[in-house]
Order: sequence, then C-alpha cells, then structure tokens
Amino acid sequence: MDLGDIRAAIVAPDPAAAAAARERIDQLTKPVGSLGRIEDLAVQLAAIAGGTPAHAYERRAILIGAGDHGVAADGVSAYPPEVTAQMVGGFLAGFAAISAFARTAHAPVFVANFGVREPLGTHPQLLDVNVGYGTANLAKRAAIKHADLGYVLAAGTAAFDEVRERAPFDVLALGEMGIGNTTSATAIVAAFTGKPVQNVVGRGTGIDDERLARKIAAIERALARCNDFTWDEIASEMGGYEIVALAGVILCAARARIPVVLDGFIVAAAALIAGAIAPAALGYCIAAHRSHEPGHAVALEALGLRPLLDLELRLGEGSGAALALPLIESAARMIREMKTFAEAGVATSDQETATV
Amino acid sequence: MDLGDIRAAIVAPDPAAAAAARERIDQLTKPVGSLGRIEDLAVQLAAIAGGTPAHAYERRAILIGAGDHGVAADGVSAYPPEVTAQMVGGFLAGFAAISAFARTAHAPVFVANFGVREPLGTHPQLLDVNVGYGTANLAKRAAIKHADLGYVLAAGTAAFDEVRERAPFDVLALGEMGIGNTTSATAIVAAFTGKPVQNVVGRGTGIDDERLARKIAAIERALARCNDFTWDEIASEMGGYEIVALAGVILCAARARIPVVLDGFIVAAAALIAGAIAPAALGYCIAAHRSHEPGHAVALEALGLRPLLDLELRLGEGSGAALALPLIESAARMIREMKTFAEAGVATSDQETATV
Repeated sequence: MDLGDIRAAIVAPDPAAAAAARERIDQLTKPVGSLGRIEDLAVQLAAIAGGTPAHAYERRAILIGAGDHGVAADGVSAYPPEVTAQMVGGFLAGFAAISAFARTAHAPVFVANFGVREPLGTHPQLLDVNVGYGTANLAKRAAIKHADLGYVLAAGTAAFDEVRERAPFDVLALGEMGIGNTTSATAIVAAFTGKPVQNVVGRGTGIDDERLARKIAAIERALARCNDFTWDEIASEMGGYEIVALAGVILCAARARIPVVLDGFIVAAAALIAGAIAPAALGYCIAAHRSHEPGHAVALEALGLRPLLDLELRLGEGSGAALALPLIESAARMIREMKTFAEAGVATSDQETATV
Repeated sequence: MDLGDIRAAIVAPDPAAAAAARERIDQLTKPVGSLGRIEDLAVQLAAIAGGTPAHAYERRAILIGAGDHGVAADGVSAYPPEVTAQMVGGFLAGFAAISAFARTAHAPVFVANFGVREPLGTHPQLLDVNVGYGTANLAKRAAIKHADLGYVLAAGTAAFDEVRERAPFDVLALGEMGIGNTTSATAIVAAFTGKPVQNVVGRGTGIDDERLARKIAAIERALARCNDFTWDEIASEMGGYEIVALAGVILCAARARIPVVLDGFIVAAAALIAGAIAPAALGYCIAAHRSHEPGHAVALEALGLRPLLDLELRLGEGSGAALALPLIESAARMIREMKTFAEAGVATSDQETATV
C-alpha cells in the first residue's frame, strides 16, 4: 500500500451533493427535520455517492478482522488467547452473535485472518491474509515492527479487494475479534487523544480489578515508549494486526467511495489510524453505535462521529455494525423513494418558517 | 369489546420463561451481558412467547391508525386537517416515510381509518373501521362521547383482526396519522401523569410560538373538565379516535400474546390508555424509540418502558416502530441461533464472577 498514493486518491465526500440532498429531504412529505438522524445519514450517503444514491445499499458485506495480541500473555483479558480462533470458528460455522445479526441484515460474513495465533484451516468465508501469529507484547516492546506497518496495511487492502470480488457490496460493515485487543485499542485511543488511560480504559470482556490493573500497567508502559505520537509510532507500539489492517480497509473503502460502518471501540481505534493517515477517509465512516466500553465515546469524539445506536453493546465482532445496516437502507430509501409535497400534491405547512 | 373479558384474558408475560431465557443468554458464546439491550429484548420476547420464540418474528405487519381531531380547527398544527387524508394517500401509494422504512423491514403497511374527516375511498391496504369523521374539539367539549368509547375500542379490535387475517404476523408495529393529534396526546399524557402541560407539550409538526400558545390553552381547557382522571374520562375528553382505537389494538395484541411495537408520542398515549384498562398489557409493548417530542420521555417513564432507538425522530406514521423491527428479529435470532460455550466447545472466561 503506497500511502502517498492512497492519501491522494481519497477525496472527501461531495459537499454540493450533501446540500442538494438536504434541500430535497426538506421538501419530502414530512415536517422539516422530522426524521432526525436518518436525514443526516441520508445526507452523508448522498455526499459519498456524489448525488442521490443509485441503490438502497442492499448489497452489503460484513468483514471481521481477527488477530492475536502478545499482551494477552499478561492476563489482561478474562479469556485465554485460544478463544480468538475458537470464536472465528463460531463466526464461520454461523452460531455467533454476528452470524445471527448478519442473517437479519442479509449480509454475508467474511473473516480476515490478519494475525491469529492458532492455525485456522480453510473455509469459503475465511480470508487468509495472515501477516503473523499474534503481535509482540506491547507491555514490553513494539507490538508490530515499524518496518512491517505497510505490509499490515496492505493485508487490509487485500482483504477489501477479496471481499469485494466475492460479494460485491455498496456498504461494508467492519468488526473484529482478538483476545486482548481492548488493551491495544485503549492504548491507541489514549495515544491519539492524549486522555489519561483511566478515562479510556474499560473492562473489555468483563475483567476484575486485578486484571484491570495489569491492563492499565501494560498500556502505560507502551505509552511511555512513544515520543512524537505520529500514527505510525502509535500503530507500531500498540498494534494489533487486525486494528492496523482494518485501518487499511477503511482507507480502501474511502478510496472506492463506499460507506464503511464502524462497529465499536476496537474499530474506532482503527479509524483513528486511518484518519491520521488520510483525514478525508473519515467522511466515509458511519459510527454504528456507542459501545458500553468507556473509551469508545472518547474515540468517537476524536473522530468527530456521532453513533446511530446506543444499545449498551460491548461485544465487538461487528455486532453493532450489523444492527445499523437496516438504518442505512432506510435512509437511502427515504431519499430515493419518498415524494416531495409538490410531487405528491399534499398541502404544505402554512408556516413559511416552521420551527424545527 | 367487553373490557372485563379482555382484562381477564390478558396474562402478563411469563416470568419463568424470562428467567430461563436469561440463563441461556448468559451461556451463549459472548461475555455475559455484552449484548446489552438486545439481551433484554430477547428476554422480553421469550417471556411473551412463554419460552424460546419459535421463529425470528419475520412475519410482521405495520398498522397505522388514522383519525382527525376537532381541535385542529383552532390552528394547533402547522398543517391543515385535509393533510391527514392526503398523507394516508401517500402511505397507500407507497411514497411516504413509513412506506420506505416498511420496505427495509419487509413488512406490509395497513392503514386503519378510525376517524378521518375526508372520504378515503377504497384500497387493499386500507381498513374501513371508521367510527366518525373527526372528533369534537377538545378545547370546547369531550372529544369522544363517553358512551362511544367501547365502540371506538372495538374498532381497534376489528382492525387487529382484519390485519391478522390478511397478513398473519408474529409482531405488530403501530403508527398513527392525524393532524392535531399531538394536542390530544399531550392532554392524555398530562392527565395520566399529572405533569404540568409545559413539561409535556412540544411543537409537533413544527409550530411557532403563537400556535404553541393556542395548543397549550386548548389542552388546559380539556384538563380543567376532568374530575377523577380515570382512563375513560381521559379518553373521552381528549380523544382521539385513532388513539383510543390503538389502545384497543394493544389490548388485542396482549390478549393474543403478540409483541406490539410502539412508535412515538401518540402511540405512547394510546399505550397509557391500554395500560390503565389492563396493566398486564404493557408487558407486550416494546418502545421502539424516544421521540424528539418532549412529552414522549414523560410518557415512556409512566409506561415503564425504555426505548430502543434515539434517532431524534418526530414524524409518527410508525416510522420509528418500523426501524426497530430488525432489532427484534436480531434479538430473536440471538437466542434461537447462537450456541452456548458448552455447545460450541469454546473456552469460557477464567473468572467465575466476571464483572459485567
């Protein structure tokens, strides 16, 4: 992945298309502003599409980036690292939460093995883009060698291209799986925002006080190694493979002018990396939900994104992103399928300037 | 509708089924509690079903109750009363917001003409259960004659039965249309909760200060006529036909042990009436969203319901209820289709008592 090329190829969503969409939405047969966040979402979709979307985003896919984290050896999670591979097995077998939610959303689920510790075998929905068998322990040293960052980002490109070839999509939802990855994400969010770790850290899968103390200590050690807090320093020191690779996926989606639905805290950390590489990429990002994990709100604020849902989720896997997909279809259908007052022959408000 | 009979026939959702559902959900391959509100929703669905739901609520329908309000003559809305019939025309023609959202939700839309002022003609999706051509002006006198309340509730029963016959459903989403009906709903919510009108009233379709003052004055006059604030006094004084009839629909759904998805402020007012008639009926209600209309939060609190979505909607039509339908499917799929750690052979948390 040539970062200069991709940075140059990513153009912010079209403000003229956004303004035209807003104008049309204000004339549809409903009080001005009465569909709230769905209207904002439709405006964003139109800006991304460069006009009224040509479809209702029914072609969609879910991509779960999976990777292991050396820091898991320090006991920062309630689950042992082999659970990463076991959960991936569940995604592929179709009995995980994301499997259930994906069936509601009529979206195929792909898993990109960006760096799982255990061998995963083969499966039609599994993408072998593995760049290593788990990162180094961020409590001790750089999780990813700095020289490898381009290679990890390129794994994201490969995954994006492969999903697009197998299941062409108009919107892509992202998720992740990796025991220990809230530790990595917390370090990333703290590093990008400058917020104290205490304000970002959470209990992830549900850890006790002792593990929480270990998690904080590991993050503090990684932060202490940072000097200039550039994206590449942060990505290298904190990892993980799936987070950095998902940043690559986000950049690809932005380059292709395809909206990308972010799941929770971990994917938000990936978006922070993508946004640091190419700020315009964030215009293609839709925050599906606000996670129960406290650092997610910090990350969303830094990203300048407002989440659509607030369902106290803290699972990951893309579960929140999958739940948001029907909202995207509804927003597109609103602007595509509703008529204006004039088109419909419905009497308009008798107030020129309705308070909205 | 014999109210004694229906009250006796409505049994609260099954607490043993709820407890069994919670126990199973806690063993699924995810950290305990990590699907937040979706877990709560699945527990409610299981309690309603009396066990794990036998389906994923893919058979669904949307029922929009429509009616006109005499108080509209006082200029309490930004739109003239003929817009009720015009909007109903849009619902049936398929170019309204609810039409677009219903296509996403794969749900047919039915409109029950409970009391629209204008003639509506015939249409396969239009139910003729009209009990009058708009209510009386609640600012001056009882909106509905007390003796007619049973007749209006029975119109709700007729609509429920007709939709169920035409499009058998496992979940029913409710919406409404009626110029002036936020005035009626505000009066109902203020009457049931005892809250000052100022704390409940909003700008509905988007009215200016002058109309808002007229709206408040009308509501205050209706409230001043109430003596004992029983459900029947409130329903009679405040109306409207669609609100009281939708209360009848909610009672029917509860009697049939079918979950019913409430849209916004107006449907919440209907639920307050239903709950006053048969408190157990509220166990079958799912609050789709928190509307931008300020009185909705007041009503939801009185109903003891937590909304799923908060998208700053204030349109009505069932738009928010339609957006929530996929969440119900996802919750049902979670409990039906996910495996437990034991079933899946995934390592469990190494903490006996994970902090959640």
